[in-house]
Amino acid sequence: MVIETLSLARSHGGMQGVYRHDSFETRTGMTFSVFVPPGHGDTKFPVVWYLSGLTCTHANVTEKGEFRKACAELGLIFVAPDTSPRGRGVPGDPQGSFDFGLGAGFYVDAIQAPFAENYRMWSYITEELPGLIAENFPADMERQSILGHSMGGHGALTIALRNPQRYRAASAFSPIVAPSQVPWGIKALNGYLGDGRRAWREYDTVALIEDGARLPDLLVDCGDADPFLAEQLRPELLEKACADANISLNIRHQNGYDHSYYFVSTFMEEHLRWHADRLRR
Amino acid sequence: MVIETLSLARSHGGMQGVYRHDSFETRTGMTFSVFVPPGHGDTKFPVVWYLSGLTCTHANVTEKGEFRKACAELGLIFVAPDTSPRGRGVPGDPQGSFDFGLGAGFYVDAIQAPFAENYRMWSYITEELPGLIAENFPADMERQSILGHSMGGHGALTIALRNPQRYRAASAFSPIVAPSQVPWGIKALNGYLGDGRRAWREYDTVALIEDGARLPDLLVDCGDADPFLAEQLRPELLEKACADANISLNIRHQNGYDHSYYFVSTFMEEHLRWHADRLRR
Repeated sequence: MVIETLSLARSHGGMQGVYRHDSFETRTGMTFSVFVPPGHGDTKFPVVWYLSGLTCTHANVTEKGEFRKACAELGLIFVAPDTSPRGRGVPGDPQGSFDFGLGAGFYVDAIQAPFAENYRMWSYITEELPGLIAENFPADMERQSILGHSMGGHGALTIALRNPQRYRAASAFSPIVAPSQVPWGIKALNGYLGDGRRAWREYDTVALIEDGARLPDLLVDCGDADPFLAEQLRPELLEKACADANISLNIRHQNGYDHSYYFVSTFMEEHLRWHADRLRR
Repeated sequence: MVIETLSLARSHGGMQGVYRHDSFETRTGMTFSVFVPPGHGDTKFPVVWYLSGLTCTHANVTEKGEFRKACAELGLIFVAPDTSPRGRGVPGDPQGSFDFGLGAGFYVDAIQAPFAENYRMWSYITEELPGLIAENFPADMERQSILGHSMGGHGALTIALRNPQRYRAASAFSPIVAPSQVPWGIKALNGYLGDGRRAWREYDTVALIEDGARLPDLLVDCGDADPFLAEQLRPELLEKACADANISLNIRHQNGYDHSYYFVSTFMEEHLRWHADRLRR
């Protein structure tokens, strides 16, 4: 599998790259970024996956996430994929809105026409891209963890819950924890999966926990000035599900913070340290 | 003087704002960003001015600069202005290139038509905007310092050299140190000031030092993989001028770094600590 280097720059002692490849899952070109911390010779590093939110590409966190200093210090590879397929012939939202289609893949494998052909972000993130990372970077694939923001928090938590052996840690900023119960999620799951709600449960953090999926612990930050908190994020549903399931949830309601990267970047280092602790074990 | 708040978000414990006002210097609307560190009541904070490079607005460093954590810890206000006037009727480069006109004000007061009416970035940065900062933010204007990147490094060093009593520290990332001697600078100074080279010396770091301007010390970082180093930046001219003038110059040639914010953000914290040391005295 061939990847093309779009840019490569030294930063915080490591190397920040942006890459492109032809994806067999999405049948499109896909762009992603990888930060490799400083190291010598054949050192391999744990891999932290970061999944982004609605409207984002790899670039948002790469530019605004303030993760490189901590990743350099902790010795972590940081991978930031795109949030949907893009390009000629890829269908988007017929209404052209931001919360479905382009930039809004919701980390599912779509089964509904016309989205099923390209919108295979679940398989892309969990199968195809890990293969590329293992092949092209000094990655210790036995030590992976995952985090994300908003729609990407949904992606990170659902992927970790369904692959608990693979990811040693999972955390989220302002995640959509119950897409089956909120407007953004209902629109997306209906569009990608159809109205058979049984299938939605595989892509819903709260439903997965209700159905028996388990992780040892979770770290979640939410800003209490986040305008999407009450209608779209609903962290109280995650708190209840984790309490019922005896999952240790460290949820922090951060005073005065909103939904932006000004918030994410503030707590990024703490998340990465939390991941590094679990990746060292 | 009225400023309009375009956005305001908590970050790293402080508040990151973006503001707009009608400038009497540039006769345009002007946008700038200000980070205010966490504090209580009537605490006032030293002010660090950051001047950006060619093509930038306030947004580049605000999003990619990784300055907020250090400013929050050190108690520094961080101000990021735009790099030129913009808007209807503001003349740009007749050729439409990136290195003159819009996004390329070069921190001079233009005297050549058609630029003299709007391109008054020197007075805007040194007179008008400080008045707004003093009036609208918890700023201790007795304690100011200045830094910048590329064209903004040129701006920071020339402004500090001509106002040594006002700015307690000056530093730069990849500065244009001798605009009179390099293509970007010759084009800009010729366009804004005309071909009377005597006037250029007031806007040229190396010439100002040759003509007797002094600062106690300077911190400069340059990447040795910067593609503009040899033709546009020419740090060796600054090294010679400082040596001849007995100015203590700490110039660091950073191995493998380029001209981007991946470079700037890597060393931002060290610059801010260096400024904070001098602002505390």
